[in-house]
Amino acid sequence: MKKKDQNFIKKENQNLILDLIQDHDLVTRAKLARLASMSPTTVSRIVASLMDVGLVKETNKHTTGVGRKATFLSLNPDSLVSIGVELDEKNIRVGFFDFLGRSIATEETEKELREDASSVVSRLKEIIFRLIHQYEIDIHKITGICVGLPGLVNNETGEVIISAQLGWENESFGQLLKDELNYPVLIDNELKLKAYAEKLFSKDKSSDTMVVLGFGSGVGSALIMGDTIYRGYLNSAGEIGHTVVDPNGMLCTCGNFGCLQTYIAEGFLIREASKQADVQDLEDIILAADENQKWAVNIIERAITYAAITINNSVCLNNPDKIILTGSTIERFPSVRDRILEAANKQIWSPLSDTTSIEVSDLGETGVILGAGLLSQRVYINQLNDEKELIKNE
Amino acid sequence: MKKKDQNFIKKENQNLILDLIQDHDLVTRAKLARLASMSPTTVSRIVASLMDVGLVKETNKHTTGVGRKATFLSLNPDSLVSIGVELDEKNIRVGFFDFLGRSIATEETEKELREDASSVVSRLKEIIFRLIHQYEIDIHKITGICVGLPGLVNNETGEVIISAQLGWENESFGQLLKDELNYPVLIDNELKLKAYAEKLFSKDKSSDTMVVLGFGSGVGSALIMGDTIYRGYLNSAGEIGHTVVDPNGMLCTCGNFGCLQTYIAEGFLIREASKQADVQDLEDIILAADENQKWAVNIIERAITYAAITINNSVCLNNPDKIILTGSTIERFPSVRDRILEAANKQIWSPLSDTTSIEVSDLGETGVILGAGLLSQRVYINQLNDEKELIKNE
Repeated sequence: MKKKDQNFIKKENQNLILDLIQDHDLVTRAKLARLASMSPTTVSRIVASLMDVGLVKETNKHTTGVGRKATFLSLNPDSLVSIGVELDEKNIRVGFFDFLGRSIATEETEKELREDASSVVSRLKEIIFRLIHQYEIDIHKITGICVGLPGLVNNETGEVIISAQLGWENESFGQLLKDELNYPVLIDNELKLKAYAEKLFSKDKSSDTMVVLGFGSGVGSALIMGDTIYRGYLNSAGEIGHTVVDPNGMLCTCGNFGCLQTYIAEGFLIREASKQADVQDLEDIILAADENQKWAVNIIERAITYAAITINNSVCLNNPDKIILTGSTIERFPSVRDRILEAANKQIWSPLSDTTSIEVSDLGETGVILGAGLLSQRVYINQLNDEKELIKNE
Repeated sequence: MKKKDQNFIKKENQNLILDLIQDHDLVTRAKLARLASMSPTTVSRIVASLMDVGLVKETNKHTTGVGRKATFLSLNPDSLVSIGVELDEKNIRVGFFDFLGRSIATEETEKELREDASSVVSRLKEIIFRLIHQYEIDIHKITGICVGLPGLVNNETGEVIISAQLGWENESFGQLLKDELNYPVLIDNELKLKAYAEKLFSKDKSSDTMVVLGFGSGVGSALIMGDTIYRGYLNSAGEIGHTVVDPNGMLCTCGNFGCLQTYIAEGFLIREASKQADVQDLEDIILAADENQKWAVNIIERAITYAAITINNSVCLNNPDKIILTGSTIERFPSVRDRILEAANKQIWSPLSDTTSIEVSDLGETGVILGAGLLSQRVYINQLNDEKELIKNE
């Protein structure tokens, strides 16, 4: 337990006001005070400091009816720019985002399998500086860069502990990137960033305990409590793919038998299917299943069963009010997605089945870079606060 | 996200100071300020308000050496008394605790299977008033009563949603009890209360993310983050017993095939064993396994395997720094306990195996009533704060 001090409250309340201005674009100070249950004085003080650093701006508008002018607040979209990056087995994706989370520029490019960290850093540097030049981005507005990748990541040091998909182990990736770019750098697990974006961009803001499940080259889960990412002791929470669902099951890359991901993750399905046919990716298996080839039907049916089990197990352990499904399997194959939803309805433990809404992500492929960009901005703003606090204390 | 206000900080900091005084019995204000990284003024203000309501007391002592008097603080053990209750299938356990969590009086008695809620309330009333009389407990010091039971409980309304072990469904147990006793009443899930006690009484206070796993008549898990119980949306988090580990497994009471608890929980093991021999409880199976009867050896071995899987799955999903094993299976059968620990060592996903310490609870059977008593006290103290705040705001 740590001391909660004035600075902690200040940040929390400032974040709340920023979120409210974002959610209710063009809002008065009086309405903010009502929405946040804060005193008008507190709201005015927070707004003043946010305007001070240019994050919030005023607009004078005639209100309808009486014609009296009122002052509305909105985020200043151009006040800052952040860079979100996603790395996976085969791709590098880079995006620049303004303060509203709107994309300024994105680029996607292929990477080598197991490409080493310093090579990835060089390519990121090239892409980022080229995009800055091409889109005439003001480098003074850049808050930093945040990279999401699959695997275990120490989000405090930027070290990649292990990433099977990237082929990295104990890689000081954050430090390498910082040395080259000279911006603040954050490294995090990709699904946690995607979940963060889902939370901030969900239409229904009321969710307090949300789980994002990713089905694709791996299987993962991320839990968001309020606006906070649940990280666990070493930022490694959510490795649902390595929960064991059959002690006599298939051998997993980790050495255990019957990890959940061996029944669902694309690579395992392809390896299994290769015993029967020449398949390159999940689409080949799904096509074969559509043609009623028994081996393919069985593989897909089993994957759907275990995806439904994943949803049930997450409901039982985390008791979320909302689960969002994401990942390439969900996004690329609507028929599989619909069958997973149907199977989950039957599978979820009945005392909790009506209390969890299961939805499909609509952020698609940009979810990770968007979450990365937004987290970079939030961390920057909170540090701004620390610096101001430091000055005041001197 | 809710507004964090002065009152929130006040409570958090007051709780921190109370915890520090408890951990460092006989501590000076100056040392508290250092330990809590608070200003001496803040510490003095908090201590004054705690002394005001009698929770903390001063002792003057000569310090060694120079002989100068110093003023030490400690909790005032007699300042309040709370009542913790545990209900399970066959037993009622009641305990009175002082502010240090020391037991003043306890009583355990058998209850009927599926005994109805109003009958349990009558018996609790009889026991509580008899113990108050017998131990001459000052009724004005009683902060309230907290009841832990197995099942889904709405901890805000005191309603028992469903408890298979008690045979209750949608039972307004909290209200019934409050009507009879006229004390503040809390109803909660038993394992969450046990975990709360484990956290407050653990020798190593450094754990920040702790999971308590219970193996007995059911299988459950409880997650403590800092000093906070993770509850999920409806206080139903931790139902690991209903995570599915084999879609073709045994039928569970919930209607699903292959819930984790069907391989571990005592009732299921007895039902399985009954196909081969006349067994009354887990001990009969363990004795038969010790005599090398094949059916019993197999049942126990499978249970141990799945208990190790439970530990692994909890590590992968929650990434705790510490897991504490508890429950009747662990507490009554040391040889089974040791074999579970050994199996878990081999089973836990290797990237996280060295980062989680697995321990065995030493609170034993009083864990739930102790946690219940402590939570009742903490809620009482925080409400005291609210009332004072209300008065000040008027």
